[in-house]
Amino acid sequence: MSTELVRKRKVLPVLTVLLSVLIALAGVTASSVLKESTSDSVLPAAAGDDLGDGTRLAPYEVVGGVKVFRLRAAPLSWEVSPGNVRQAFAYNGTVPGPVIRVNEGDTVRFIVQNDLPENTALHWHGMDLPNDQDGVPGLTQPEIEPGQSFTYEWKAISTGTHWYHSHMHGDQEGKGLYGSLEVVPRLGDIVAARDYRLIIGDGPLGFVFNGKSFPATAPLRARVGERVRIRLIGAGPEMIHPIHLHGGYFEVVAQDGRRLPVPQQMDTLLVGVGQTFDIVWVPTRVGKWMIHCHIFSHAETHHGMAGLVSIFNVDPPAVGLPLPLGG
Amino acid sequence: MSTELVRKRKVLPVLTVLLSVLIALAGVTASSVLKESTSDSVLPAAAGDDLGDGTRLAPYEVVGGVKVFRLRAAPLSWEVSPGNVRQAFAYNGTVPGPVIRVNEGDTVRFIVQNDLPENTALHWHGMDLPNDQDGVPGLTQPEIEPGQSFTYEWKAISTGTHWYHSHMHGDQEGKGLYGSLEVVPRLGDIVAARDYRLIIGDGPLGFVFNGKSFPATAPLRARVGERVRIRLIGAGPEMIHPIHLHGGYFEVVAQDGRRLPVPQQMDTLLVGVGQTFDIVWVPTRVGKWMIHCHIFSHAETHHGMAGLVSIFNVDPPAVGLPLPLGG
Amino acid sequence: MSTELVRKRKVLPVLTVLLSVLIALAGVTASSVLKESTSDSVLPAAAGDDLGDGTRLAPYEVVGGVKVFRLRAAPLSWEVSPGNVRQAFAYNGTVPGPVIRVNEGDTVRFIVQNDLPENTALHWHGMDLPNDQDGVPGLTQPEIEPGQSFTYEWKAISTGTHWYHSHMHGDQEGKGLYGSLEVVPRLGDIVAARDYRLIIGDGPLGFVFNGKSFPATAPLRARVGERVRIRLIGAGPEMIHPIHLHGGYFEVVAQDGRRLPVPQQMDTLLVGVGQTFDIVWVPTRVGKWMIHCHIFSHAETHHGMAGLVSIFNVDPPAVGLPLPLGG
Repeated sequence: MSTELVRKRKVLPVLTVLLSVLIALAGVTASSVLKESTSDSVLPAAAGDDLGDGTRLAPYEVVGGVKVFRLRAAPLSWEVSPGNVRQAFAYNGTVPGPVIRVNEGDTVRFIVQNDLPENTALHWHGMDLPNDQDGVPGLTQPEIEPGQSFTYEWKAISTGTHWYHSHMHGDQEGKGLYGSLEVVPRLGDIVAARDYRLIIGDGPLGFVFNGKSFPATAPLRARVGERVRIRLIGAGPEMIHPIHLHGGYFEVVAQDGRRLPVPQQMDTLLVGVGQTFDIVWVPTRVGKWMIHCHIFSHAETHHGMAGLVSIFNVDPPAVGLPLPLGG
Repeated sequence: MSTELVRKRKVLPVLTVLLSVLIALAGVTASSVLKESTSDSVLPAAAGDDLGDGTRLAPYEVVGGVKVFRLRAAPLSWEVSPGNVRQAFAYNGTVPGPVIRVNEGDTVRFIVQNDLPENTALHWHGMDLPNDQDGVPGLTQPEIEPGQSFTYEWKAISTGTHWYHSHMHGDQEGKGLYGSLEVVPRLGDIVAARDYRLIIGDGPLGFVFNGKSFPATAPLRARVGERVRIRLIGAGPEMIHPIHLHGGYFEVVAQDGRRLPVPQQMDTLLVGVGQTFDIVWVPTRVGKWMIHCHIFSHAETHHGMAGLVSIFNVDPPAVGLPLPLGG
Repeated sequence: MSTELVRKRKVLPVLTVLLSVLIALAGVTASSVLKESTSDSVLPAAAGDDLGDGTRLAPYEVVGGVKVFRLRAAPLSWEVSPGNVRQAFAYNGTVPGPVIRVNEGDTVRFIVQNDLPENTALHWHGMDLPNDQDGVPGLTQPEIEPGQSFTYEWKAISTGTHWYHSHMHGDQEGKGLYGSLEVVPRLGDIVAARDYRLIIGDGPLGFVFNGKSFPATAPLRARVGERVRIRLIGAGPEMIHPIHLHGGYFEVVAQDGRRLPVPQQMDTLLVGVGQTFDIVWVPTRVGKWMIHCHIFSHAETHHGMAGLVSIFNVDPPAVGLPLPLGG
């Protein structure tokens, strides 16, 4: 499937409506979503929309009750930051690949086309699925050769924030072959007015959040008093990153897609390769607040901020809040 | 003590019976152990038996009510993976050293013989013991010189999964001078049908689980629906490893031998040098499921899987289970 | 402000009395403090006093109800261990900078004088404060040029253990521009007979606890049965350290200044750059117990212990304890 086809699909009106309905049916706190749906809100989103963090939802077709996604792995010249172009590998022409968001209980199918100059395979990290769909070449399936495709199919029963990635070797994955895999639970999803993801990369593309290095990282928007959900995903391929948010603290509410029995508050969280965390932040102050890796060489040079840095632009609350926050 | 003597001891019938009785008395869920004791079960084990993960229980003698272990440190040529032979240091001729498993309340004695070409000392990591038994050369004892021995004696009151290792310097420890130290509590041990350990090494022997690199790592067996306990031990000497299990999630139930007040579910766990974790996994699907470090260069090369990788071979349940697992 | 002035201030009797009163009023378990206040106790402390760990409390003046601190950043030759002198950057002539300890609700002002040969800025890590006081040059304020000063002012509402540091780049911070920032809560502070801090550095000064490498690290005192609080702060600028305590286990009671809803016991704790942890240890045995990073190359060489190592000297209890500890 060409990149062009992907772009066309993203504006397909029928699909957009269908997806909106499905998201509403999935119980993503539909009423609060409608209430929050001001011009600057990122919820709900349709396939192809920018999710407010530089990533986009993957489109799909429904065939016989199965959600069918197409992922094409191919080489790409990718601008990590202004003038800094690297040789990447990408699914559907973006780093990271499109956000795959499905509902608990969905049967999903992925047609993976290998247009790389080398073999590949795709692993669905954190999923409980049949062994032959696990995507480990040489163990659960043969390698997918250049020009060939492979079809995965499984039922989405592992809810929460997960990710998908090449399971071939770290160099291939580090070039960009990864993306967010979000299974919305039927009940009890994390309630938030904003839903962002930051996928942390530290491989051949340099230090990147969602495929970009500061200052090219997407600025993130929020308002004082909102619940802001951030899905942190350690894509590696090599390092552990202490992710720090300025302006107070956040609450860690889930790890590897599973709710913490006792959420914990902190301002700096270790995110290792392969781990995901859902954190919720309620900004208390207007202003520009950094979120960054606290290993200095991953976020700063002698010329200033670089790499694993994004900026939250926090605006005043949309409505009057009953109590002052942050005193 | 020669390696030969160790082998002879392992078949000493009296000792075997004695140990079995002691394990039963220790309350290691004796009834469920007997019920589970099919040919592929690893519980209970006698001294010298392979514990199903490539490690073996240390033999001991009871002298005046004290359990006496002999540990001989000596150089060794050690095959890490087929054809990959490294110069190792080992206790009793194996990397890791033998698994020391005792009961809460035991008085234990260790006669450590230094047949290395350099000084050494042995530390009992995580133990509450008299200061002069702590094994820190230059602080709590003199260094043990080549050809000399040193005797440690203490009472085992720190229950759970711990480890022992050379406290001399990282190069010596990294060559293989470490092993699992398991103190079975009188009451309330973690209940499991399988009891495995994976000691993570990243020193002069390369990236090793229990002294071996994939594909030489011991394959691990389990059945759908069983509670499988895995004791993860970060032996280092240098790195932090995010350990990932395919096929769903596990539950972290203890850290450094101490039960977590609130167990937590995840699929990837950071294990730093010196840390131990007890995790419990209940497989839901038949098949070959990887457990591996998720730092790509620790588990893969361009030629495929390598280093910190083991494979769980999950068979169907031995008996019919009341409910489908994994849907 | 010269170093001399700082020394003079430390003996200012009025200030000393004032500080003692303030600490008592802050509810730092005043009665138990008085009871514990034997000659070897570190509580309470006055500005300039050694806190028992090699650090000293920052002096301040009260001007119109505001606590005013002066921090002067300047180059310094700093002896990390005997004969090992490095070119450091320091606040007020010490690495780390003085301990800033204030009470919840205090309005605080910091006059930062830049006597470095390069630009700087100072960040109050973990504080909920107005955006223009956050100390991020190029985002929330201009860089402070050599010879210039900058004044920060904010209200201390984020309680617990935090830290302050240069937010310029890692090399500058790693040279020593950091210190502990402790906001004593009005109610419910962590109760302890001893209150130590270990700030972990791994930059241009080498591996240092509170600016010193073993054997120059400050020996720490404690008695059997006491509650000993240790504030661990990961100053980096680059690494994650598994901090291990010999002689049993400790309890992690707070992270990034926020109390853990469920404290957790362990003997080895990962401390990443930017993180703080409050741990409480109750020694059970007399003797010399190490606390150290368990990455071997950070704490040992072939010539013995070095770098990130401190020694607890544990004495017998001051009074008879009702029950034996540690059996």
